[in-house]
Amino acid sequence: MDLLKNPLIKSLLEKRAISSRERREIALTILSAALGAVEPGAAIRKVLRYDSESGRLEVAGREYDLNQYNRVYVVGAGKAGWPMAEALVGLLGARLERGLVNVKYGYVPPFGTETGPIALTEASHPVLDEAGVKGTQRIVELLQGLNEDDLVLAVISGGGSALLEMPVEGVTLAEMQLLTGALLRCGATINQMNTVRKHLSQIKGGQLARWANPASVIGLLLSDVVGSPLDVIASGPTVPDTSTFGEAWATLENFGLTTTGTPPSILAHLRAGVNGQLPETPKPGEALFEKVQNVVVADNRIAALAAVEAARHLGFNPLLLSTFVEGEAREVARVYAALAKEIHTFNTPVARPACLLLGGETTVTVHGEGLGGRNQELALAAALAIADLEGVLIVPLATDGSDGPTDAAGAMVEGDTICRAKSLGLDPHDYLRRNDAYHFFESLGDLLQTGPTQTNVNDLTMILVF
Amino acid sequence: MDLLKNPLIKSLLEKRAISSRERREIALTILSAALGAVEPGAAIRKVLRYDSESGRLEVAGREYDLNQYNRVYVVGAGKAGWPMAEALVGLLGARLERGLVNVKYGYVPPFGTETGPIALTEASHPVLDEAGVKGTQRIVELLQGLNEDDLVLAVISGGGSALLEMPVEGVTLAEMQLLTGALLRCGATINQMNTVRKHLSQIKGGQLARWANPASVIGLLLSDVVGSPLDVIASGPTVPDTSTFGEAWATLENFGLTTTGTPPSILAHLRAGVNGQLPETPKPGEALFEKVQNVVVADNRIAALAAVEAARHLGFNPLLLSTFVEGEAREVARVYAALAKEIHTFNTPVARPACLLLGGETTVTVHGEGLGGRNQELALAAALAIADLEGVLIVPLATDGSDGPTDAAGAMVEGDTICRAKSLGLDPHDYLRRNDAYHFFESLGDLLQTGPTQTNVNDLTMILVF
Repeated sequence: MDLLKNPLIKSLLEKRAISSRERREIALTILSAALGAVEPGAAIRKVLRYDSESGRLEVAGREYDLNQYNRVYVVGAGKAGWPMAEALVGLLGARLERGLVNVKYGYVPPFGTETGPIALTEASHPVLDEAGVKGTQRIVELLQGLNEDDLVLAVISGGGSALLEMPVEGVTLAEMQLLTGALLRCGATINQMNTVRKHLSQIKGGQLARWANPASVIGLLLSDVVGSPLDVIASGPTVPDTSTFGEAWATLENFGLTTTGTPPSILAHLRAGVNGQLPETPKPGEALFEKVQNVVVADNRIAALAAVEAARHLGFNPLLLSTFVEGEAREVARVYAALAKEIHTFNTPVARPACLLLGGETTVTVHGEGLGGRNQELALAAALAIADLEGVLIVPLATDGSDGPTDAAGAMVEGDTICRAKSLGLDPHDYLRRNDAYHFFESLGDLLQTGPTQTNVNDLTMILVF
Repeated sequence: MDLLKNPLIKSLLEKRAISSRERREIALTILSAALGAVEPGAAIRKVLRYDSESGRLEVAGREYDLNQYNRVYVVGAGKAGWPMAEALVGLLGARLERGLVNVKYGYVPPFGTETGPIALTEASHPVLDEAGVKGTQRIVELLQGLNEDDLVLAVISGGGSALLEMPVEGVTLAEMQLLTGALLRCGATINQMNTVRKHLSQIKGGQLARWANPASVIGLLLSDVVGSPLDVIASGPTVPDTSTFGEAWATLENFGLTTTGTPPSILAHLRAGVNGQLPETPKPGEALFEKVQNVVVADNRIAALAAVEAARHLGFNPLLLSTFVEGEAREVARVYAALAKEIHTFNTPVARPACLLLGGETTVTVHGEGLGGRNQELALAAALAIADLEGVLIVPLATDGSDGPTDAAGAMVEGDTICRAKSLGLDPHDYLRRNDAYHFFESLGDLLQTGPTQTNVNDLTMILVF
């Protein structure tokens, strides 16, 4: 962030006499600001203000007097579980009674599996395992013992769907995995998957909040879902569920899974639900949610807006275009290049020096045997589309620091990237065809490597036009 | 354009109580303004001002005193040849001596093949034929007889590459077509194609201007090329050429076409050029271009800016994002939907009611047997991506009125399009898979049919968010 305070930047921008290296440093400065805003600890400290003297806790405009509460607990799950829990320990200190948070294997402090009074349970992700279920059962046991003068802070982040699960009675983990696989093969959408899973779970779809009732619940959500729909983030354990047993059954029926492919135990459970013999997931408007507040502490938009602010501070004309971007990475890249070309040629929709931000999560249809990720593939396709265009820098970034199965977060491309690659004997089209963007950018030294960031709010692409 | 004067529109927008039909009428009003601005006659009348009393002709800021010129001729080629010629006849009247313009078969007035003193020669497009070559030879003969006190207005529009051609001595039309086919099969880019073709032509790549020398030349260009690079529009007959015989040869060599697949006459010609035995195409900075002015009278950006103005006038917050959009139509559509979602949810980057404009030309990788065009396919994919989103209207439009091999220019989609389709028993994913967007929208009554517009400045997509 030193560059932000550097008056040289503005004068550099005014002169337009910036080297490629300076351009990249500027880009990293802006992206650091974006990542800083969604670092779980910073994000929680921004949303929660606690005054230990008065006992006053303010959460996104709502006030809690902790003197009026007996015990304060932390529960939750997700890949950002540890830093989120740690931030609460730092914030609430001795006021915290105890805590249980499920995290991914290895996502724990270097020594031990706890932070303050909060125990971290390691479990498997993305395929769930018994460790996660056992951890969830312990969370439910803790919640069951609460009274109406207790307060629960639930830290929910990406990966929580797998890390926080307790199947309904009579259904095993193996049976649930069988059905999940079948649904995926049928091409079920994420909404369809969630509708079914919420009705086979004792914790998803608002049921964590129901276990906690009559205690108060503050859900602190770190969103890794495009558009941040609350009920989708980690399958919404603290959020009202609008889907029904009827819809879950209809989904299986739609894919022919009611006649074959679904374990009988699951069919029996859903049938009982459809017949009204089982309670539905908690619905919007139910009284229990009067004691529940859900707050998104960090998401793609918060990161993008922080980038906008940093870019403005540096003298750029920033414009946040979308945080909903989805689509095939290499084609999305061409649209991004088209935006850069318009600014480069006509100073439209904003004048140079310009900084465009686009967030979301693209996909890659893999045809080749190469190594890469959606952001690196987007970068390679963008490099081809802006070849020979001067003064344009495009940086697609996975905010968790890990793009696809690689140790890179993304890559940095400019108008001369393709020319530089060709001078090294690299054929960019061939690398793209083989989905091998990682090795392409590794050879060029243009990989963006942040290391694990401990957060995940999808992807962010920054387009700088000087 | 009546709606533009209707004060009801603004109040409708303020109330947000607009029916789907009203939304579509508003969209058509804005798009009519866009098409009106690039209608060849209107476009020429905007760029050329002629005062018959004083003989003063103003062309994009440059002045010509027609009293100082002896004869004024019109030549040119392209699908918009007739309306462009007609506008000049209306503008210059008796001052026009004579004219020769090559047009596509059928692109002529209902009776006859002339407008005023300008004769229209019908020829084949996109595959060129002898009629086009004969017409071009007549144009060259006319230009050869000019003196330095003569003035030539050259009307150049899309299709001109095929409609205006005169192969170099010793190379036949059939041989050129053979090579063009071979280059296409090798995956040559448009730039590579043009480099070769300009060096096998006596008219492309600035050579029309050389034939006209020492007369003055005003090139009036109607661009159907994304980004409007002057030397690419109709292969730039009036524009300096930066490519060389050496590059043309290297292109063939690159595809292995110097050893096989290229007619010997062509190889001999290019080899002679490489060896300096033939004159190069006219290069930037050559003296002859001092007497040449090239003006883009209409292109995608002019259409988009007219839409921006009309939208602003109606009370929208308009934003032109790009006129360089390329990419696979169905993926581009998803990015467009992402832009609509951001405005819908966050009023970013502009507040509702908003009007985004994006121009360019997408492509469709055809897998199915259906009927459609790039704009209709974009519309169908966009409909899927904005399903259930209220108050969003997306309209992709081919400005020539003919999207792909259909009689539709595009289609209009809203948040309820998919729901309406399903209620009619249509499976949108299936139509998309079969590239059958035309029949999908035909069933819904949502095709956009403008009829032939006599112009072509690529495609324009408008996104309205109410």
